[in-house]
Amino acid sequence: MAKSKVVVFEKANQPLEVQEFDIPELKEGCVLVKTVLSGVCGTDPHCWRGQVKGMPVPVILGHESVGRIDKIASDRKTDSVGEPVKEGDLIFWVAGHPCGQCHACVIEKDTTGCIARRSYGWSYSCADYPHLTGGYSEYVFLTARSFFFKIPDSVPAEAAIAFGCGFPTAVRGFDVMGGVQPGESVIIQGAGPVGLSCLVMAKLGGASPIVVIGAPPSRLELARRLGADLTVDISDLKDSESRIQAAKEAVGEVNLVIEATGFPEAVGEGLELVKTFGRYLVMGVFSDLGAVPINPTRIVIKNMRLYGSVFWEPKHLHRVIQLLAAHNDTLSLQDAVTHRYGLAEATSALEDVEGLKCVKAVIDPSL
Amino acid sequence: MAKSKVVVFEKANQPLEVQEFDIPELKEGCVLVKTVLSGVCGTDPHCWRGQVKGMPVPVILGHESVGRIDKIASDRKTDSVGEPVKEGDLIFWVAGHPCGQCHACVIEKDTTGCIARRSYGWSYSCADYPHLTGGYSEYVFLTARSFFFKIPDSVPAEAAIAFGCGFPTAVRGFDVMGGVQPGESVIIQGAGPVGLSCLVMAKLGGASPIVVIGAPPSRLELARRLGADLTVDISDLKDSESRIQAAKEAVGEVNLVIEATGFPEAVGEGLELVKTFGRYLVMGVFSDLGAVPINPTRIVIKNMRLYGSVFWEPKHLHRVIQLLAAHNDTLSLQDAVTHRYGLAEATSALEDVEGLKCVKAVIDPSL
Amino acid sequence: MAKSKVVVFEKANQPLEVQEFDIPELKEGCVLVKTVLSGVCGTDPHCWRGQVKGMPVPVILGHESVGRIDKIASDRKTDSVGEPVKEGDLIFWVAGHPCGQCHACVIEKDTTGCIARRSYGWSYSCADYPHLTGGYSEYVFLTARSFFFKIPDSVPAEAAIAFGCGFPTAVRGFDVMGGVQPGESVIIQGAGPVGLSCLVMAKLGGASPIVVIGAPPSRLELARRLGADLTVDISDLKDSESRIQAAKEAVGEVNLVIEATGFPEAVGEGLELVKTFGRYLVMGVFSDLGAVPINPTRIVIKNMRLYGSVFWEPKHLHRVIQLLAAHNDTLSLQDAVTHRYGLAEATSALEDVEGLKCVKAVIDPSL
Amino acid sequence: MAKSKVVVFEKANQPLEVQEFDIPELKEGCVLVKTVLSGVCGTDPHCWRGQVKGMPVPVILGHESVGRIDKIASDRKTDSVGEPVKEGDLIFWVAGHPCGQCHACVIEKDTTGCIARRSYGWSYSCADYPHLTGGYSEYVFLTARSFFFKIPDSVPAEAAIAFGCGFPTAVRGFDVMGGVQPGESVIIQGAGPVGLSCLVMAKLGGASPIVVIGAPPSRLELARRLGADLTVDISDLKDSESRIQAAKEAVGEVNLVIEATGFPEAVGEGLELVKTFGRYLVMGVFSDLGAVPINPTRIVIKNMRLYGSVFWEPKHLHRVIQLLAAHNDTLSLQDAVTHRYGLAEATSALEDVEGLKCVKAVIDPSL
Repeated sequence: MAKSKVVVFEKANQPLEVQEFDIPELKEGCVLVKTVLSGVCGTDPHCWRGQVKGMPVPVILGHESVGRIDKIASDRKTDSVGEPVKEGDLIFWVAGHPCGQCHACVIEKDTTGCIARRSYGWSYSCADYPHLTGGYSEYVFLTARSFFFKIPDSVPAEAAIAFGCGFPTAVRGFDVMGGVQPGESVIIQGAGPVGLSCLVMAKLGGASPIVVIGAPPSRLELARRLGADLTVDISDLKDSESRIQAAKEAVGEVNLVIEATGFPEAVGEGLELVKTFGRYLVMGVFSDLGAVPINPTRIVIKNMRLYGSVFWEPKHLHRVIQLLAAHNDTLSLQDAVTHRYGLAEATSALEDVEGLKCVKAVIDPSL
Repeated sequence: MAKSKVVVFEKANQPLEVQEFDIPELKEGCVLVKTVLSGVCGTDPHCWRGQVKGMPVPVILGHESVGRIDKIASDRKTDSVGEPVKEGDLIFWVAGHPCGQCHACVIEKDTTGCIARRSYGWSYSCADYPHLTGGYSEYVFLTARSFFFKIPDSVPAEAAIAFGCGFPTAVRGFDVMGGVQPGESVIIQGAGPVGLSCLVMAKLGGASPIVVIGAPPSRLELARRLGADLTVDISDLKDSESRIQAAKEAVGEVNLVIEATGFPEAVGEGLELVKTFGRYLVMGVFSDLGAVPINPTRIVIKNMRLYGSVFWEPKHLHRVIQLLAAHNDTLSLQDAVTHRYGLAEATSALEDVEGLKCVKAVIDPSL
Repeated sequence: MAKSKVVVFEKANQPLEVQEFDIPELKEGCVLVKTVLSGVCGTDPHCWRGQVKGMPVPVILGHESVGRIDKIASDRKTDSVGEPVKEGDLIFWVAGHPCGQCHACVIEKDTTGCIARRSYGWSYSCADYPHLTGGYSEYVFLTARSFFFKIPDSVPAEAAIAFGCGFPTAVRGFDVMGGVQPGESVIIQGAGPVGLSCLVMAKLGGASPIVVIGAPPSRLELARRLGADLTVDISDLKDSESRIQAAKEAVGEVNLVIEATGFPEAVGEGLELVKTFGRYLVMGVFSDLGAVPINPTRIVIKNMRLYGSVFWEPKHLHRVIQLLAAHNDTLSLQDAVTHRYGLAEATSALEDVEGLKCVKAVIDPSL
Repeated sequence: MAKSKVVVFEKANQPLEVQEFDIPELKEGCVLVKTVLSGVCGTDPHCWRGQVKGMPVPVILGHESVGRIDKIASDRKTDSVGEPVKEGDLIFWVAGHPCGQCHACVIEKDTTGCIARRSYGWSYSCADYPHLTGGYSEYVFLTARSFFFKIPDSVPAEAAIAFGCGFPTAVRGFDVMGGVQPGESVIIQGAGPVGLSCLVMAKLGGASPIVVIGAPPSRLELARRLGADLTVDISDLKDSESRIQAAKEAVGEVNLVIEATGFPEAVGEGLELVKTFGRYLVMGVFSDLGAVPINPTRIVIKNMRLYGSVFWEPKHLHRVIQLLAAHNDTLSLQDAVTHRYGLAEATSALEDVEGLKCVKAVIDPSL
């Protein structure tokens, strides 16, 4: 019986261990994928540090991954958009599985609100069938309910994984607030994968000017390369007042502010940067860090619209692939992958990502 | 030369004085109106108490008024929607005058953001031409730039003025957030004219159930008469936690929450009452009372949309009149006018409104 | 083994035959329903006449049905919106089953576009498992992929079925074009189940005035009872010109026109009735009857928006139930069920519906 | 008294005559502009041929013009967006003047529907004050009700005028239908100024792929230079069927089709090219050429949305200037100005535009 090397997370803060699992037999609708790259998301170190409650350890981490179809059930002839697929094709699969029979799934038709949603690399114990349920693994076993999309030959695996799950998160945020129109001014708070993906979306949509407020310098440099007209380093301008002043002097209040920081204090700062009749897309602060002082009068007096957005759906990942097919010649997102680790080096990967040493780190099981 | 009795506000906290002014001669595009009723808005006592900065005293208060056309310039044959008008017609005029040549007026096409906007009953000194610039007056002189609408015979003046400028404020808020759909659940925070007008809008739009949280009992009684399925008296449930619990037990989280209180603390409370994928319309807190603790994670994790809305435009007042023409047979809004004062009693009117003694108080110059 | 009486459609124009089928054993996720009422949709006679291509006869007709849960698999504890259900509960099930893995299902998130969709009462042969796949039957067997919703005790089965699949069709059309706002004027072309459901939606949303153009008199009478301010009988006004003139004289051009007739010629007529900046919802002409003369300049010069809408999704049926729970006390839709037939009388039901003898006909297997 | 050379249109088909008019004295709010360039719009030859009913001859043609402020009233300190202006500044003025007191202006807040709108270069007789009311003139006299915008130094006058009134028409069309999102596929019918402007808007918004169907070769070449992925020459593919086939083979049905041709037959063709759930923006067929065969079932069965759009508002011209300021470095729209005529050559300009000899022709009074 064929085997797969996997990296197992068992206990907080302990080095991850490489193990070998049997590969289950293929059933109706299933796909066995050979992992090409699995992104190390910024939340992975939090999982590893035990800060994410209720993970059903042992777990194989890795919820943003691309790979090649190794074996595919004979009844599954296409990807989730009806595109024919075959063994050898590069695909990007969706880690999450909505329940399909709840208020969010059926009535809202938006699975980001599914309270019974489970996700590969996160909420499946690898002790249970089908075991190969995370991207830090030589092989991944996709069950019949999985969504996945073919990546066209023109798009490198590195480009697809470069901003990981941050890119579909940004696409979904843009959907939720109606996108940008050419000529709109934008300020993005945060230069992580979500913030940089928002920059790409704003740039592709013709926004101008675009300001990114964040850190560290390596990411701000990438931001400028991707088209930010101005970057503000929060290590230089440490207090909110000075950042507000700098942004206003450079571009004034703007049509659209995007929060992609994770810090609730950023929201109060952002409200100052939105123009009258402007929009504020809030995505970063999904981990509950409690209440902070915010002045709601700004929302009223500036006739503002705010949009909260968390998670994403399969269609947003499909859009990412479409956008890369159309625009990666110019974007060259593969350059964002700065660090690459073998399965045995997964622990170092988590430490380096935690220490903000990488623009993007990936697990490459072939190393 | 014809004269008009007027009530002049000269100095904070001093009794208002009845004076007599000359009526200016009619010019091109102008209309002389004989006031039938002028509403005493909840902000009028604040003006009188000197809490509104920069009022160009002496001022004739009264920014929500209906009256009959006394004289109309021969070149002005219609109201602002093209409806023919003649002497004797009952009209509702718009107090505000946008500048017409600024970013809000020309680019946003939304005069609520016009920073040069001036308003009868508020920002015109009655020492200047055309003097008759507020509703607490026997006559009002509308210049060529004024907007006004004919009130059909089927609508009593009292119904038109019942919720005063609160009704177009609510209409505009509903416009901004796309209105309600039949079957949506709604919680309204606040039972003043804006809150009650929102109740009318929600009811007309088929929302169900509708909860109103506010005070005093007389207004909550009116709320129930207008179709609220449940009212929560904030004098009974004084703390936020207990109100949240009461509302959730009764109707759960809802599709739409509307803030019409003026208290920034209400916003944090409202965020708890919005359902996942729900909306929050924030209108009340337009006076800046500073920052309060708010948890922005609620916005993100519930995929919420927030809409700030302040002021209104002529079209929203026109909608009010249309809605009354179609629905006042059932609504019977005239019943909300509980107190009526002559010009000489204007000071008592301000005091009574300040003391929350009235559902709606009006100045009736014929008394 | 338990048995179910069923009505089988085998050959065009032949009388339907009552047969007896074995009831399959319950599997995971499945539900056995005892039919209470199955609506005779206006398309059912077309099926029977052989005008619907490719039906996999033998077929049990009936795609709009309510019934009581007879047996439910132990792992299925709720309906499709998470509401707990048990044996004996009255439910409304969704006939259609989208594929879940195509462009419409995954990317558009709108299963009305699913090209692999199959439907009970239409596209399942009753020769194949699970056999009990249409509403003209004593029992219906819902597989695990089925959607269904609990009907609250306050809603009679007759009210739920009264406009059959026309009601969710209307709800979906209203969703697609953003609904109506209180005070908007509406003209509805067609007085069948879709047209009458649109009338209910417009009325619940506060539209005024509402005009219905259609036939026969019994339906126009129901339209007036449901709140139409004016009905125009197309048997009286036979040509398009006279109908346009009558409508314009009564209410002028309107904010919203809705086509629910099935006749392509109605579209040209409707374009004349839409106001500048108005909307036109086109739903009836889903059967291709070819091109007709239409003047597209009307669309441009009136700055019009047109919305096509076909079919509906589970969420729209859920909305129907919600609306009935909130408003059927007033609507009393059960009164629309004018004719009731036992299984053995199914052929007569089809003939009567074809002959427009009924407002609504239903199959009641208990007769 | 200062004089201005003007070109006067008096009688259909007669050569235009250069005359000399007195320049009126400046009044409050007024601006005297020295014309730099006035575009020869495709409708100008139709005016000259007498095909536009009711022109109040004598008229100075020219409704899309840029010039420098020669004199400005001391009370007018800014352009229509509040930007300070002074003598010598290059500005783009809006030819149209809405009435400001009608249903479209006040209720719809959309002056494209103003039925009393008048326009320089079109609906003012130059026999009446202020006489200098068209762009084919050395000077133009802007009255106080005129809207105009400053053109930044970085934008050449030629770029601003390159697509004339076609560019704001396109911007408004995009506004009406919500714009494009990055990655959406687009087919544009028509390669005139409106079609090419739509191409610019689609490209700036990240659409991909973009197909332009039109003629002649010089415009299709410009289309490819501006980013069209494919152009289809209607002189090569003369029948609708072959164009539909060519487009579908190249890009399939698309998210967005835009009609910018003026031929009603194009609408039926366009409906075939829209994808299920796609949009169709119809702008070209604003001149009534009557009904043509159209199949409305396409609209329904493809769940399509159609948007009609005609004319534009000052804000759309302002957006044009903003977009040029941000993007003309890449667009280089000035290259589209292929022909330049002095005032005395205005008749030749009309003939050349009529004969489709120019990509863009302009009147340059300095020649």
